[in-house]
Amino acid sequence: MSMDWLDDVNWDKDGLVPAIAQDAGNGQVLMVAWMDREALAETVQNARAVYWSRSRSRLWRKGEESGHVQTVKEVFLDCDGDVVLLKVDQAGGIACHTGRASCFFRKLDAGKWIVTQPVLRDPDEIYGKP
Amino acid sequence: MSMDWLDDVNWDKDGLVPAIAQDAGNGQVLMVAWMDREALAETVQNARAVYWSRSRSRLWRKGEESGHVQTVKEVFLDCDGDVVLLKVDQAGGIACHTGRASCFFRKLDAGKWIVTQPVLRDPDEIYGKP
Repeated sequence: MSMDWLDDVNWDKDGLVPAIAQDAGNGQVLMVAWMDREALAETVQNARAVYWSRSRSRLWRKGEESGHVQTVKEVFLDCDGDVVLLKVDQAGGIACHTGRASCFFRKLDAGKWIVTQPVLRDPDEIYGKP
Repeated sequence: MSMDWLDDVNWDKDGLVPAIAQDAGNGQVLMVAWMDREALAETVQNARAVYWSRSRSRLWRKGEESGHVQTVKEVFLDCDGDVVLLKVDQAGGIACHTGRASCFFRKLDAGKWIVTQPVLRDPDEIYGKP
């Protein structure tokens, strides 16, 4: 299959694009991470989300440590081609490294960020104690 | 009201953060744009989405030309503080400058991007003929 579709993505000067993972079932926005060309190509090929970890400078196969893999159901690109949207099935119902369903668990309420989601699984249990 | 909550945002080296606008009703991801500190402060103060236009290097009060303003119902911040999520009511049901409900109207299908959403209103009608 041709990979020409990758050329329609407007990669930034570092060769990256932000990718939003959204729960394919309930529509919850789970997380945002970055992808390079290889990450997006592999994501589509295997229908499993792969990101580029800017902090570790390497491919990050989501769930490789936690087991919380994301099965990709649909891939969208925005009008100017510089953001990708994935609709995913989130294994374990946990996308966030804090053990919560979504990374967007802080909500602004009267000038303060309040936590709106419970920890579903202790990160020490997910990743092992340091 | 204290503005200390703005200090919890991890602004990038250009002083910006990406912001996702999600339809508060049906959960559709509408668009992603950038905010600087002033844009986010004004967004919260007026409960109306304001972005920083990187192409025009100025504040962009969403809907200032199109009338397609976004009334902000909730504001979330992700775990590492570098992405904002807005839940909005989208005036006119059109977020995209192409006249579509969402900017994410291209879907990858068998190696091609296909258009999945109709144009609800002709951009010439929204913005006036050039």
